[in-house]
Amino acid sequence: MAKRFHKEKYIEGIMAGDRVMLSRAITLVESRLASDQELAQQVIDQLLPYTGNSLRIGITGVPGVGKSTFIETFGNYLINHQGKKIAVLAIDPTSQRSGGSILGDKTRMDSLATNPQAFIRPSPAGKSLGGVARNTRETILLCEAAGFDAIIVETVGVGQSETAVHAMVDFFLLLMLAGAGDELQGIKRGIMEMADAIAITKADGANVHKAKAARAEYQNALHLYPPTASGWIPKVSVCSAIQDAGLDTIWQTIAAYLDQTQHNGFFEKKRKQQNLLWLHEAIRQGLEEKFYTHPQVKSLLPDFTEQVKEGQKSAFAAASELLRLI
Amino acid sequence: MAKRFHKEKYIEGIMAGDRVMLSRAITLVESRLASDQELAQQVIDQLLPYTGNSLRIGITGVPGVGKSTFIETFGNYLINHQGKKIAVLAIDPTSQRSGGSILGDKTRMDSLATNPQAFIRPSPAGKSLGGVARNTRETILLCEAAGFDAIIVETVGVGQSETAVHAMVDFFLLLMLAGAGDELQGIKRGIMEMADAIAITKADGANVHKAKAARAEYQNALHLYPPTASGWIPKVSVCSAIQDAGLDTIWQTIAAYLDQTQHNGFFEKKRKQQNLLWLHEAIRQGLEEKFYTHPQVKSLLPDFTEQVKEGQKSAFAAASELLRLI
Repeated sequence: MAKRFHKEKYIEGIMAGDRVMLSRAITLVESRLASDQELAQQVIDQLLPYTGNSLRIGITGVPGVGKSTFIETFGNYLINHQGKKIAVLAIDPTSQRSGGSILGDKTRMDSLATNPQAFIRPSPAGKSLGGVARNTRETILLCEAAGFDAIIVETVGVGQSETAVHAMVDFFLLLMLAGAGDELQGIKRGIMEMADAIAITKADGANVHKAKAARAEYQNALHLYPPTASGWIPKVSVCSAIQDAGLDTIWQTIAAYLDQTQHNGFFEKKRKQQNLLWLHEAIRQGLEEKFYTHPQVKSLLPDFTEQVKEGQKSAFAAASELLRLI
Repeated sequence: MAKRFHKEKYIEGIMAGDRVMLSRAITLVESRLASDQELAQQVIDQLLPYTGNSLRIGITGVPGVGKSTFIETFGNYLINHQGKKIAVLAIDPTSQRSGGSILGDKTRMDSLATNPQAFIRPSPAGKSLGGVARNTRETILLCEAAGFDAIIVETVGVGQSETAVHAMVDFFLLLMLAGAGDELQGIKRGIMEMADAIAITKADGANVHKAKAARAEYQNALHLYPPTASGWIPKVSVCSAIQDAGLDTIWQTIAAYLDQTQHNGFFEKKRKQQNLLWLHEAIRQGLEEKFYTHPQVKSLLPDFTEQVKEGQKSAFAAASELLRLI
């Protein structure tokens, strides 16, 4: 086990922007040891007054859409043109199997990884989606206390993780490829409706015309969607990471969103709602962990599950019997 | 308290299609008394082999879309033209406040309410969405055992209840008004992506042209959506309940869906997944009920909630402290 420090040392280090102490505090957050968890909670709770001052951006898109290239280019744009300090985090439940497929290979974001204004942290491996999401949410707070004022949370647009990311960011950006046919195969239904903006990537060379046609199509489709709770109308734009084009438009979209939602009060309201959501989520996770690791539940659950699945036992009768065990 | 019978009496009555015994069993399901709950579980568990043989259809749409008129007309169509026995249930969390706003007034569906081939049951009042959803799910099983072979579950397209309905039906139908502008205001984002079919209602008189234009627009928009897990491509049609028109097309759509999903195995797979989902949902509900009604939790929760909401305490620290109480 790596060395642990006194909580004051983590707090002072993070407040001073010390990246090593930030990394070590995140390691505490990700640890399964109860003592580490408790230390992490104390550190976060004391840093809480210094959190919340960043812009939290969720970015999703299926593999192949050019997500890492986009994030690297956009990250550099935020640093160089908007004076931001950025942190890039990831939620990737697949890393349970692969041992870290997104952000796992830091060399994918070479120029960001070596930039002192950027901090990149791969998705913690070997955890459930709930666990990963919780860790990422706590890591956002630590990064904010360390002075990072734009937090990018990356996710793969193929699973449940988008909902978790959507619940922890201010702005949700969906990356899409031109052509509305097969390229959509991978995107899960429901994700498009969560997007505050869609960016059509790889709008370069022979692809420019197709990308612009896709932009018009999506913009048309989006007007059929019900309005968002924020009053914001999602925007569609095109960009090319390799040509460094279109990033300014995306930033202006985000800035316009911020302006509108901070003005109408939605921004603050959403943050507060997210806080409550995470409270209830953390309670639910805690309860379920106690339940599903209970020895008697563990021994009966496989049989019960099979019977319920096959319609031999009702879901509610099975649940009642299991709940009576604890 | 109304009279309770021995469980065999409920079982025999329901198997014989006795509507009074069916109603009384549903009352047990909806009761908050532990003894009633236990009796209900025993009845359902014994009837389980006789359930599952219906087509479960979810129908949603905002107030004003003509939902009750549609369900009445479509219900009569199913009885008269498809030889079905239909049950109409409802999930309406607003009935907590109003004491039953949808299906509460049975006179809204006069001709169905008096038809011996139909059984109408309003949404149970005074319960949380989770509670209502659970009751409705169990009521579906009782209705199936009583011989009803098409179950319509009605919901208002404005809240969380659609997700609950979607998780208990085979086919999800969204009713929409012509005109893609203001009429959408009420529909919650995400609901459109759950629909297996959209029916544009009130396509009669001066409205016919507008309805057909809306159909084309929605059909265009839907092709931009990611494909469904079933491989099914959602269909859009127009109908007029007052002119009895378009119901045949909607039925043919449902029949085509059934044919496709029963053939490719998705129908069975979805039912099994739904069973498991309800098992985990029932466990979660049971755990949360125990937790949130715990006296110490109840006394501390309001303060903790406020502090978390305002960012004075982290969600995870608050959850840990509360979980330590039980």
